[in-house]
Amino acid sequence: MRIFRREDIVAALDETTALVAVERAIIAFAAGRAQSGDAGHFTFPAPGDAHVKVAHLAGEDVFALKVSASFYANPARGLSSSQGFSAVMSATTGEALALFADGGWLTDVRTAMAGAIAGRAIGYKGGTLGIVGAGIQARMQAEMIRRHVGAERVLIWGRDAGKAQALATELGGEACGDLADLVRASDLVVTTTPSTEWLIDDDWVRPGARIVAVGSDGGGKRELDPRILSRAIVIADSVDKCLENGEAGWAVRAGLLAAETIIPLGELLAAPRVFDADAIVVADLTGLPVQDAAIAGAAWRVLTSS
Amino acid sequence: MRIFRREDIVAALDETTALVAVERAIIAFAAGRAQSGDAGHFTFPAPGDAHVKVAHLAGEDVFALKVSASFYANPARGLSSSQGFSAVMSATTGEALALFADGGWLTDVRTAMAGAIAGRAIGYKGGTLGIVGAGIQARMQAEMIRRHVGAERVLIWGRDAGKAQALATELGGEACGDLADLVRASDLVVTTTPSTEWLIDDDWVRPGARIVAVGSDGGGKRELDPRILSRAIVIADSVDKCLENGEAGWAVRAGLLAAETIIPLGELLAAPRVFDADAIVVADLTGLPVQDAAIAGAAWRVLTSS
Repeated sequence: MRIFRREDIVAALDETTALVAVERAIIAFAAGRAQSGDAGHFTFPAPGDAHVKVAHLAGEDVFALKVSASFYANPARGLSSSQGFSAVMSATTGEALALFADGGWLTDVRTAMAGAIAGRAIGYKGGTLGIVGAGIQARMQAEMIRRHVGAERVLIWGRDAGKAQALATELGGEACGDLADLVRASDLVVTTTPSTEWLIDDDWVRPGARIVAVGSDGGGKRELDPRILSRAIVIADSVDKCLENGEAGWAVRAGLLAAETIIPLGELLAAPRVFDADAIVVADLTGLPVQDAAIAGAAWRVLTSS
Repeated sequence: MRIFRREDIVAALDETTALVAVERAIIAFAAGRAQSGDAGHFTFPAPGDAHVKVAHLAGEDVFALKVSASFYANPARGLSSSQGFSAVMSATTGEALALFADGGWLTDVRTAMAGAIAGRAIGYKGGTLGIVGAGIQARMQAEMIRRHVGAERVLIWGRDAGKAQALATELGGEACGDLADLVRASDLVVTTTPSTEWLIDDDWVRPGARIVAVGSDGGGKRELDPRILSRAIVIADSVDKCLENGEAGWAVRAGLLAAETIIPLGELLAAPRVFDADAIVVADLTGLPVQDAAIAGAAWRVLTSS
């Protein structure tokens, strides 16, 4: 078993190849051509929590597991609060092939890739990109979308105006003090915060708005007024998981959305469609274990092919 | 993250300390003082299958995951059909601490330990030990029980009489050509085969018989005539898992055993009881993720304490 560190993976990963692999994984998941599982949510008094997820895409020569852990007292110890690793196993012999001590970097990358993939799928073609949040995922979504879809302007709103300004400067974008202005001005809004109260009011959302909701993935997190979803075409990376943990779940529980109208993202990717110019389209993303398997497999192949 | 190979672990593991840890884990599991999960059963066309299990015992400073895989075409490639590894993570910081590339050895050991623990708990104190099967687990159960509980005589029955004779010679025991004779002569019978049809007839089981059933853990496996369980006090390492995959499940589905009468092994260990001399007692073991966490934690502590 070979161990690769984050810097090895960053240096080697071919982003376009990995993005294509992640897109193919989302399609395979929706088509039932993937196995995936979650060993559950482990909590620790530290305080901390951990997930272990496993996935295999039919036909792939490897399968992968990912441990992701968050331990909130780590920064006081000089450690990152994000911990974890991935392991790649042969789907032919079961042998453990590689361990990625990546500190969660592959998860951040595949999450940003899913944002770019979903943004394009719901009709964003470049233009004004509005990023809600100013953390790691805000930066990575902006960069990934700009590189792989395009963005003439990047607007950033953050609860902490200083962090938003710093990120805007880093990205060559513009900090936006008023979230309503950002929503109204953007061709695509990507929400990346851990908010547990909705940030984007229904009133701000104009016909034709396109939103990719990344932040809400359980633990009471939500970013969108559920009335937005009542007017929208709603796409979900996993319908089940979005009903459980995503914006779609909040809207369905509020009686504002019929679960059976939600379109799996993988179906949309497999059979792309053009939405009406004035349709509001929301892509609700919670993250799929098959994305982890896809990016780990892509990294493994490039790291061992030379 | 440190990687340890099987030989490092074999050399370092303090068996008695590990056995106590496994027993404590079984007690903690029954008392609800453990978290454990299974990411599901993954199947591959190779052919092969894999499980990923995770567990944490309340109060322990580490948690652990285990990948166990069986790939049946491996021997033709010069590889073991058993593959997998364990990983130990800090329950305080989430950091990955150690990876055990043990080839499934820790699983074999903790399974044998559970046999010894269960055998003693159901009243075996040494005497004549009857081992059904002649594979790795047959040998390990015999050795572990002899070292930690005792055995004046060891009888071995195997479907392959040559393998049974070889194992008997290795152990200083006696091969037994007739399974009925073995069952009648033994103070404790331990079944370790992958049989999918029952091997031990109810007629052979005398009052006072004590049986530890290790082989049946899903996939249609069974070793005991379910009528045995209808007359027995039935103990299970996990009541739920034994109803799903164990001998208890066969007996309950046949209408021969009431599920609510099954006693969790951890409860019996926490509050030992003496069974009537003529009671038939069956301990049904499917294996618990907390056993994996316990033995991995014990190995980790000894490997890093020097």
